[in-house]
Amino acid sequence: MPLVNVKIMEGVFTPKQKQEMIRKLTDVMVSIEGENMRPVTLVILEEIKSGDWAVGGRSFTTADVKALAAGI
Amino acid sequence: MPLVNVKIMEGVFTPKQKQEMIRKLTDVMVSIEGENMRPVTLVILEEIKSGDWAVGGRSFTTADVKALAAGI
Amino acid sequence: MPLVNVKIMEGVFTPKQKQEMIRKLTDVMVSIEGENMRPVTLVILEEIKSGDWAVGGRSFTTADVKALAAGI
Amino acid sequence: MPLVNVKIMEGVFTPKQKQEMIRKLTDVMVSIEGENMRPVTLVILEEIKSGDWAVGGRSFTTADVKALAAGI
Amino acid sequence: MPLVNVKIMEGVFTPKQKQEMIRKLTDVMVSIEGENMRPVTLVILEEIKSGDWAVGGRSFTTADVKALAAGI
Amino acid sequence: MPLVNVKIMEGVFTPKQKQEMIRKLTDVMVSIEGENMRPVTLVILEEIKSGDWAVGGRSFTTADVKALAAGI
Repeated sequence: MPLVNVKIMEGVFTPKQKQEMIRKLTDVMVSIEGENMRPVTLVILEEIKSGDWAVGGRSFTTADVKALAAGI
Repeated sequence: MPLVNVKIMEGVFTPKQKQEMIRKLTDVMVSIEGENMRPVTLVILEEIKSGDWAVGGRSFTTADVKALAAGI
Repeated sequence: MPLVNVKIMEGVFTPKQKQEMIRKLTDVMVSIEGENMRPVTLVILEEIKSGDWAVGGRSFTTADVKALAAGI
Repeated sequence: MPLVNVKIMEGVFTPKQKQEMIRKLTDVMVSIEGENMRPVTLVILEEIKSGDWAVGGRSFTTADVKALAAGI
Repeated sequence: MPLVNVKIMEGVFTPKQKQEMIRKLTDVMVSIEGENMRPVTLVILEEIKSGDWAVGGRSFTTADVKALAAGI
Repeated sequence: MPLVNVKIMEGVFTPKQKQEMIRKLTDVMVSIEGENMRPVTLVILEEIKSGDWAVGGRSFTTADVKALAAGI
């Protein structure tokens, strides 16, 4: 029944990473709520356009997020 | 005043079906809240990318949803 | 698969009206997507606190919405 | 800590206007909550597809919104 | 047409501050999109329960946010 | 930068379980995006009122979800 909605920056995660994300987030929810809830546990990913996500008024592009993740 | 936000899988509904959806969802809301509320009744459709919607940890593509709808 | 999220003003609709809303919104979605999609059609209602919804910068209370609906 | 999520119609605002929007919305939040909250103040913009936003059951395209803004 | 949805921590802002927030956020949007768009500019505030908002895995209570805002 | 928004049924999870949820969901995201992203990884929990969540047009109460989880 839980609905996990994840907003991520577009172009940061590969399709393979997004599948890993879906699988692991579902497993976390099921580990807490119990296996019976698996069939009603939803995960929805939504990608935000490069530049359309800001922290403290500073807009981040896809490149900015990749640099941040890489510790650059 | 109500805001109806509908998340659907991309590529499953035709533009014509989306217009039908908007019209009918609005009519349902108005049938309950009264005709005076029509001008402030909003419907927003958002399409989720193929593969980015999962149920029970299983990711669905546009093709998967079409097959499900067709009863295949 | 569709997810219908409806934001409404708190205290405007009775529990009975909310159940009617859920049933009718689901039926509308199923009328378009097909009966096979019924089991994966979700509706979630969320109530906004009185005063926390604004149109054109004018804040609406529950009483304001009821007056609007009544055509007062 | 506040999260400001803005849904806009695609193609109505230029990238420059979106940056102005991000900066000004952040400044408004900070003017109320205090400068210490700036680093945890988020703004996320999401664009709705032309035709997928309806008011009173009437669907609006990008052109419709531009005409409305221009007072046509 | 824009919809500004603001998630805030419950109990951090007074009703007066929330009204100021609504008014100023609306004015920012109108300053960019034009005065004609005021009647279709929406602001919705949603309060998150104390403890249900986390950054970096650290959960924040209402008291935590107030302390952060006060620079304690 | 990712924002994980989880909608759950009110009264189903204890405060302790919600803290576990926040911690584990954050860890999953960090395991995929890298440790550098931890400080900008957000989790927000939102509780839906009993009866206001429906699947296939059938409304679920808190008791219904607990029974489902317990396999009753």
